[in-house]
Amino acid sequence: MPPAAPPRLRIRIVFDEARFFGPGKADLLAGIARTGSIAAAGRDMGMSYKRAWDLVQAMNAMFASPLVAMARGGAKGGGATLTSEGERVLALYHLVQDAALDAGGAALQELSAKLSDI
Amino acid sequence: MPPAAPPRLRIRIVFDEARFFGPGKADLLAGIARTGSIAAAGRDMGMSYKRAWDLVQAMNAMFASPLVAMARGGAKGGGATLTSEGERVLALYHLVQDAALDAGGAALQELSAKLSDI
Repeated sequence: MPPAAPPRLRIRIVFDEARFFGPGKADLLAGIARTGSIAAAGRDMGMSYKRAWDLVQAMNAMFASPLVAMARGGAKGGGATLTSEGERVLALYHLVQDAALDAGGAALQELSAKLSDI
Repeated sequence: MPPAAPPRLRIRIVFDEARFFGPGKADLLAGIARTGSIAAAGRDMGMSYKRAWDLVQAMNAMFASPLVAMARGGAKGGGATLTSEGERVLALYHLVQDAALDAGGAALQELSAKLSDI
């Protein structure tokens, strides 16, 4: 039987050979917005602190304005927040995702209906 | 400077926990349609024969009707072709991709414009 839930889309936006933005970066930004911490956001995704930190550095370098702002100080080295540019980039990614689900809805439904019974 | 070319999208359609269809499967189907051979299609993607064969088996099991038909015989074990269901699934995947690029165009353009100079 085809699955009851409509399919989800995982979209990677490929700007050029070296620069892309996909679900991992989007989820990390969302996690930083939610937790106020790169470490906590990475942990929620099962990601090492180094991996989360590297992704944040890559995102900040990739865009003209940084997406994540780091606050210094405190026992844990301070928190992190999204800049307004970070919030906008995350919102734009979700806009692309929603537009794709919406505009591709009929094709996705036809694909789902072709799945085998499980 | 933002890249001159518009961004591309790599879309993975996630039907449920175990079943998805993304650029790898789509490119393999397109390669089989072009070359008439699973081995040749895989080779064009830098994929081992085993990997290409496993992907074809997974696709054929995932949908109610097989996407790839294998012909037996001949020194190389016969060729492979897309069934009409395979052609339709590939066309639907491209429809989703085109719809996403079109509907998400404004957001993608805004994202591109935010990239740093390189």
